Amino acid sequence: MRKSAIKDIWASGGAVINGWCAIPNGFVAELMAQMGWDSLTIDTQHGLIDYQAMLGMLQAISTTAVTPMVRVPWNDPAAIMKALDAGAFGIICPMVNSREECERFVGACRYAPRGYRSSGPTRAIVYGGSDYPAKANDTVLALAMIETREALDNLDAIAGTPELDALYIGPSDLSVSLGLPHGLDRNEEIVLAALQRVLDACRRHKIKACIHTGSTSYAKRMLDMGFDLVTVLSDARLMMLAGLQAMQELRGAKAPAASGKVASPY
Amino acid sequence: MRKSAIKDIWASGGAVINGWCAIPNGFVAELMAQMGWDSLTIDTQHGLIDYQAMLGMLQAISTTAVTPMVRVPWNDPAAIMKALDAGAFGIICPMVNSREECERFVGACRYAPRGYRSSGPTRAIVYGGSDYPAKANDTVLALAMIETREALDNLDAIAGTPELDALYIGPSDLSVSLGLPHGLDRNEEIVLAALQRVLDACRRHKIKACIHTGSTSYAKRMLDMGFDLVTVLSDARLMMLAGLQAMQELRGAKAPAASGKVASPY
Amino acid sequence: MRKSAIKDIWASGGAVINGWCAIPNGFVAELMAQMGWDSLTIDTQHGLIDYQAMLGMLQAISTTAVTPMVRVPWNDPAAIMKALDAGAFGIICPMVNSREECERFVGACRYAPRGYRSSGPTRAIVYGGSDYPAKANDTVLALAMIETREALDNLDAIAGTPELDALYIGPSDLSVSLGLPHGLDRNEEIVLAALQRVLDACRRHKIKACIHTGSTSYAKRMLDMGFDLVTVLSDARLMMLAGLQAMQELRGAKAPAASGKVASPY
Amino acid sequence: MRKSAIKDIWASGGAVINGWCAIPNGFVAELMAQMGWDSLTIDTQHGLIDYQAMLGMLQAISTTAVTPMVRVPWNDPAAIMKALDAGAFGIICPMVNSREECERFVGACRYAPRGYRSSGPTRAIVYGGSDYPAKANDTVLALAMIETREALDNLDAIAGTPELDALYIGPSDLSVSLGLPHGLDRNEEIVLAALQRVLDACRRHKIKACIHTGSTSYAKRMLDMGFDLVTVLSDARLMMLAGLQAMQELRGAKAPAASGKVASPY
Amino acid sequence: MRKSAIKDIWASGGAVINGWCAIPNGFVAELMAQMGWDSLTIDTQHGLIDYQAMLGMLQAISTTAVTPMVRVPWNDPAAIMKALDAGAFGIICPMVNSREECERFVGACRYAPRGYRSSGPTRAIVYGGSDYPAKANDTVLALAMIETREALDNLDAIAGTPELDALYIGPSDLSVSLGLPHGLDRNEEIVLAALQRVLDACRRHKIKACIHTGSTSYAKRMLDMGFDLVTVLSDARLMMLAGLQAMQELRGAKAPAASGKVASPY
Amino acid sequence: MRKSAIKDIWASGGAVINGWCAIPNGFVAELMAQMGWDSLTIDTQHGLIDYQAMLGMLQAISTTAVTPMVRVPWNDPAAIMKALDAGAFGIICPMVNSREECERFVGACRYAPRGYRSSGPTRAIVYGGSDYPAKANDTVLALAMIETREALDNLDAIAGTPELDALYIGPSDLSVSLGLPHGLDRNEEIVLAALQRVLDACRRHKIKACIHTGSTSYAKRMLDMGFDLVTVLSDARLMMLAGLQAMQELRGAKAPAASGKVASPY
Repeated sequence: MRKSAIKDIWASGGAVINGWCAIPNGFVAELMAQMGWDSLTIDTQHGLIDYQAMLGMLQAISTTAVTPMVRVPWNDPAAIMKALDAGAFGIICPMVNSREECERFVGACRYAPRGYRSSGPTRAIVYGGSDYPAKANDTVLALAMIETREALDNLDAIAGTPELDALYIGPSDLSVSLGLPHGLDRNEEIVLAALQRVLDACRRHKIKACIHTGSTSYAKRMLDMGFDLVTVLSDARLMMLAGLQAMQELRGAKAPAASGKVASPY
Repeated sequence: MRKSAIKDIWASGGAVINGWCAIPNGFVAELMAQMGWDSLTIDTQHGLIDYQAMLGMLQAISTTAVTPMVRVPWNDPAAIMKALDAGAFGIICPMVNSREECERFVGACRYAPRGYRSSGPTRAIVYGGSDYPAKANDTVLALAMIETREALDNLDAIAGTPELDALYIGPSDLSVSLGLPHGLDRNEEIVLAALQRVLDACRRHKIKACIHTGSTSYAKRMLDMGFDLVTVLSDARLMMLAGLQAMQELRGAKAPAASGKVASPY
Repeated sequence: MRKSAIKDIWASGGAVINGWCAIPNGFVAELMAQMGWDSLTIDTQHGLIDYQAMLGMLQAISTTAVTPMVRVPWNDPAAIMKALDAGAFGIICPMVNSREECERFVGACRYAPRGYRSSGPTRAIVYGGSDYPAKANDTVLALAMIETREALDNLDAIAGTPELDALYIGPSDLSVSLGLPHGLDRNEEIVLAALQRVLDACRRHKIKACIHTGSTSYAKRMLDMGFDLVTVLSDARLMMLAGLQAMQELRGAKAPAASGKVASPY
Repeated sequence: MRKSAIKDIWASGGAVINGWCAIPNGFVAELMAQMGWDSLTIDTQHGLIDYQAMLGMLQAISTTAVTPMVRVPWNDPAAIMKALDAGAFGIICPMVNSREECERFVGACRYAPRGYRSSGPTRAIVYGGSDYPAKANDTVLALAMIETREALDNLDAIAGTPELDALYIGPSDLSVSLGLPHGLDRNEEIVLAALQRVLDACRRHKIKACIHTGSTSYAKRMLDMGFDLVTVLSDARLMMLAGLQAMQELRGAKAPAASGKVASPY
Repeated sequence: MRKSAIKDIWASGGAVINGWCAIPNGFVAELMAQMGWDSLTIDTQHGLIDYQAMLGMLQAISTTAVTPMVRVPWNDPAAIMKALDAGAFGIICPMVNSREECERFVGACRYAPRGYRSSGPTRAIVYGGSDYPAKANDTVLALAMIETREALDNLDAIAGTPELDALYIGPSDLSVSLGLPHGLDRNEEIVLAALQRVLDACRRHKIKACIHTGSTSYAKRMLDMGFDLVTVLSDARLMMLAGLQAMQELRGAKAPAASGKVASPY
Repeated sequence: MRKSAIKDIWASGGAVINGWCAIPNGFVAELMAQMGWDSLTIDTQHGLIDYQAMLGMLQAISTTAVTPMVRVPWNDPAAIMKALDAGAFGIICPMVNSREECERFVGACRYAPRGYRSSGPTRAIVYGGSDYPAKANDTVLALAMIETREALDNLDAIAGTPELDALYIGPSDLSVSLGLPHGLDRNEEIVLAALQRVLDACRRHKIKACIHTGSTSYAKRMLDMGFDLVTVLSDARLMMLAGLQAMQELRGAKAPAASGKVASPY
């Protein structure tokens, strides 16, 4: 079976640099796959992406050795299984707030007896190889998002879920849940303390700790803090920030401020 | 943040005339947006529309000042949040039959602490403006559909749900639920009495009363009855009825009867 | 081979009522195919339709007995042959201004030795039947558009082109070419005289005379004048006019005038 | 209302030969509809198909008399109702493991009072006819998949669900659930005994017994065993096996083994 | 009729900053339209864009006041007229090498008697307004690309073509034609001399001079040199360069060099 | 630059086995790319494929080492250059009947000074590598189709065209041109003699000889005859023949005859 770059990096003690796809387009995914990310996540939650777009993007990423993951819109077995059958090698599931929700999530990622994923990896077997059915349970990653106060309260119960591979922090939702404004790359003490709590829980339960960021500088800070995977900027944000900077260079004071006005918070 | 035409009209005491999109096509949506409706609802339940089509239609409507809403296929947070992130300024949710279901619905429309909507308005921030995250909770409308006997039984519990903006009557399902045939623009006493009950409940709970109709004459009758928003004819029905009328003019007795044979009941 | 409703009607001395598709959508085409038109033309010139949309629309029309034709964007063998291979049973070619252009057009519609159409009717054989290659030359219609002063000057040369089935008048372009404004359903003497000239030329050369109109009343007038096929209103125009009328009924004086503002001239 | 070929065959005591569509493409569906299957199922679970692709495929199948069904991704009323509104004449629902799940499933297929399907058959009324709302409850088929040990344990409770038309065995998942490897066309005693149990339960409850197979020989064996509907090979598998065989003929020993490497297990 | 931002800027003596769309996606076009460009050109020649993608992108750009242009794949009346009917307010035509070719090009952009554009602005009339047919000839821009040695030889003949609005330099093709490697932002004397020759010809014939660049610095240099419109970076190049820079920041020496490896030369 | 499998095989004295894609779908292309063909040609002439479908299929094929080619709809520089910019490593051009037409064709495949291809390989540089602009002229293949009596008459003039890589026989059109019925795999003396003439001309001019076939047996015969590339069966034909055979096995005499009724002649 095709190897997961993420699992290989983690096995060798390294940290993964993950890119993020919010634009529903195969050529954008193909360009992203050329930049040097270890893995790329197709965001079908807040990204403007549905199944058919995701499928083309998974094919585009498959032109390279970059490992594809999918963030599903919700903790829904249909969405999870369709993404896996299409060839995703990992699922990031939003809003996992309890042990029960986490079990429901990871169960959808594993064939019986380790879960309840339905058999029929139509494209996954093309992408992964003929031994996919036998080896998928050990290759596909299940990452549960921690992004609410309630999830923090249930942190050990969630982190201890069998078959779970990692926790993935959504800092914007977490901030809102903690009474702060929307946005990434937070410096508030309460947020940083929460990040540390998640990191510690992951270490206790021997799973990986992952986090979403909005800049290379914050991503590096998170790597230094010990995170095992950092997501850095989406395709839309990359393009938007670059375009606003070009405008600034061309128009100076007359340009729209590079305020990130239209860049999505993720 | 961009203004909602619906909220503006309601604030000034007026009633909203809403158009309905069932055809999965951006140019049709753009034509509909030129006709003079105050708002347009993209029907992803009975309309032949899924996410990617909806996205193009939201962009097409955004070429005008018409306010876009989306009817979701079901009371499902994934569908609700994806429609909002794509720029819908209101959600019509079908089959809301209890207070619990209504709370689940409106919660998906509001960021914490007023709900559990996840943060990441990728296109909504482009359409709405950079202050969207701060102001969305007060701009986005949540309309719950009343279309079963059970919903009528729970009318006050539903209407009193915090954060709910309006009730929206689905007359065809309501008729079926009451033992009558499918179809809009009902004249049966039992249906008219139910409409009045919904209207009264809305007044009691200081929310708006909305209804689906299939003709301008019935729509006017509903406006006279006091409804705050009427939906009048879908794109498909407009085209079908006009086509059948043209055939009648051209072929006379030999034409297929303008029986609405293929026009959808909505 | 499947029969052409157009050829059958003409064989029995009747006139064809043709519908017009400008919206790139299969469901719209399916609705149009239910209204009672004898034939439907997919307009890939001024309609917002390209190949992939046309293909889905041809399939949608194939759910009925309505005969499909395609207007190609230009006198281009690639476009003509691709439309025929996809299952069109007739081609309307714009801007045919000379005998040479007409020969180039009809040659693309016929297999050797009657023309130079390339062999490979991938979907046409599914739609038409296994004897399509043998019978296509006698079933597929070639209609040349007369819509410039130059074409009028070359009328007999064009009308006498072997393998040509009909002339098809484009009144808006013809009007512009004659120094008049854009628009259908002309009443100017100079235009009416031109229509009669085309009609007479068709009679002389034993081919059919066809014309585009924008209303049922003008279409009936053209049928009375002797035309063998009239096109009446497009899907977009049907929907737009019906929508503006609904607005008028609902808003009265406050409505946008039903001026056809956004309805396309065709 | 248009007849269901499946119901007609069953009414005459025959067995249905069902084709399977996993490729998201309307032309493939149109080709499949020409081969001679009684019915075709569009697989939106393990097939690479979402709503918009399904819609075009339903239109393509509607060019013939073949009866279309849809396998939904999960027991989800939104997916079920959207497939029915688009014109599916039957729903195959995966992973029905209990009476409660089965009731939830069949309820979504029936209008009140026999279920809770919402009224608005936008395309179904075009495909089925104007009496669709009145007759759909008696035409649309509900087939529940039996594919886990848990479902076998609840076999009579499931099979006895009112409004259920048939059980449909998913042999690959069933095998995995029974501790065997993935794959169709099983010969293990434990699987064959389970098939017989399902068949017997169907007979007891006077519903139909259906099964998925991966070859014509196993399909014939299942027909001999008494199954009322057999699915035989998907479009993808047909093409893949034929391609590998061609390679074998061309390259002999140098060809990739016709091991079904990339053919999906379904 | 809606105003052209390009014509307004030129009328006031200013220079236009034009953005470039090579990615076939409406959301990317919508983001580009938010950055501050005066105009955006959808590149259907070297961009990965065909008609249906272009149509959605034109709608996306129409959500703003940015003026849309289209580069057509070739000097082909079908492509030119379809882009104009879809709402493009300007056409950039590649490889115009002679007066005859230029006349053929500009003729396709103008209604009779000023050209031979066919009447039927289906979406253009929605975007531009009801007086589009009357005013299009004076609003739509025709820009001919100068990008070969042959074109330089015919410079005055081309520049003097009636109805032509501007020359647009394609520096990569021009370089190749002059025996140099592919690429933008050339500093060779021979290229700079050619640019000056084009600029001078434009001044002589009172038309505008435009040029494609690959960086803000070269764009500013061209503005200083006197060009009336500069194109600066495409969406794909913006995203690619930003991504490679992010990689550099994250991985340092281990990153792929920001060599523009996969960025298109345009 | 990425290697062409076709050029490598030819360099080592071997013959190429080419697959054929007529179905507009990326997953079908991905399956085809797994079967063992040396190269795959996307047929945008008689296949039901336009640009956007072709683009996704090129990406799908790029997940493997199979070399992609494109058959363009006609000898049109726009179509040729767009296919090359999208990453095709060879172009098959239909209906090349004279030296002049052949020069026009090969010129569109080569950058100056060897041709007039325009510079801007947006995706080709991603697929081929950063040295694509420098090396494309020596990697991209130009194959001219010989499929008419006229082409046979001009055989040496065509075969001697500088920069031409191969002749490619279209046997169905050639047969029709010679007065025979449509169809592949001809055994008539006149056709076989023509094939030999083409083969001999290729040997004289030191270019490759290629041919389209419809079965593995005829393909092998052509390889034995000395052809350097054989195309064997399309995706649609593979699936159709396999489906009809399955029907035969299941229904026996009651099945539709495996007559290739709906399989396209190519």
